[in-house]
Amino acid sequence: MKLLEDYIRKYGVIREGGVLKVDSFLNHQMDIKLFREMGREWKRLFDGEDINKILTIEASGIGMACIAAEEFGCPVVFAKKSRTKNIAGDVWTAKVESFTHGRTYDVIVSKDFLTEKDRVLIIDDFLAMGSALNGLIRIIKDSGAYLAGAGIAIEKAFQPGGKLIRDMGVRVESLARIADMSVENGITFMD
Amino acid sequence: MKLLEDYIRKYGVIREGGVLKVDSFLNHQMDIKLFREMGREWKRLFDGEDINKILTIEASGIGMACIAAEEFGCPVVFAKKSRTKNIAGDVWTAKVESFTHGRTYDVIVSKDFLTEKDRVLIIDDFLAMGSALNGLIRIIKDSGAYLAGAGIAIEKAFQPGGKLIRDMGVRVESLARIADMSVENGITFMD
Repeated sequence: MKLLEDYIRKYGVIREGGVLKVDSFLNHQMDIKLFREMGREWKRLFDGEDINKILTIEASGIGMACIAAEEFGCPVVFAKKSRTKNIAGDVWTAKVESFTHGRTYDVIVSKDFLTEKDRVLIIDDFLAMGSALNGLIRIIKDSGAYLAGAGIAIEKAFQPGGKLIRDMGVRVESLARIADMSVENGITFMD
Repeated sequence: MKLLEDYIRKYGVIREGGVLKVDSFLNHQMDIKLFREMGREWKRLFDGEDINKILTIEASGIGMACIAAEEFGCPVVFAKKSRTKNIAGDVWTAKVESFTHGRTYDVIVSKDFLTEKDRVLIIDDFLAMGSALNGLIRIIKDSGAYLAGAGIAIEKAFQPGGKLIRDMGVRVESLARIADMSVENGITFMD
């Protein structure tokens, strides 16, 4: 998606160690006009799948998931990273390893909001190692819901997550796929 | 706002200890049609304030803030609950006590995205003790930005947060104000 690539080139900041800072428009400050165009593109890509629910994970996936959900005319469910007092009853759960934060945590989704009747699109901001996405896929499989695929904003295609998830037979549509990036040479997108 | 009150009456679940579960439409599964109407109402209430930024806090405020931001034609910044590797540089910070989770944490906002040039509306899902809102207000004051007020979805008006914040001179517009609630007698809204 050219618009997102343009944003990344213009406003993204590359740091040592494969870190791409996009916090001026994607995951700290959020550009809603961009999110609307991303939502339209995911709708175009997954049109005909009769999506009735979008699943994302807190926190930075929530904004773009909500805007996209309006395109699909469906609600969003976001997986929570820890059990709170206010979630009672049975939950679907999976373990996720965060390489950014250097820890492993449980993600949970109430069984009330994900069932075998659902046709689900996953939305998330980043795909790198694939751990969060893998956890969400596990939760959907456990629930018996139909998984239409995953809409990702930025895929670090030089990391193994995208291949890992596609090799599981899951459709992944990333709006910007980074083939290579470095502080010295900048960003190269996949064709 | 009658629509939100209707949702709370119809889908809200009251638990012992002043807990109101609204996770079927507000803070786990999210009803985007409701969020759109809430966004329009906040826009009506704060019209003329020339809002150029919405500030919220992860995680459950983000969805409604993003939909509301489209009404105002501005970006959203969400305060993060812990310092991550991907936030570098200077940050505004405040301590927030979570009564739901029984702990105190730091919330941070990058100084890049909140400055004295900003005219800010705070959006959040709940106002009860007022700790999170007080933290966001502190951050805005420290930044030198103009604070137009706070748009809250549900205020537990039987808890002290609303009075505390209004007594500071901050305009608070809560779309549903609960005067009283109990498992036995259900919910009473303020007039």
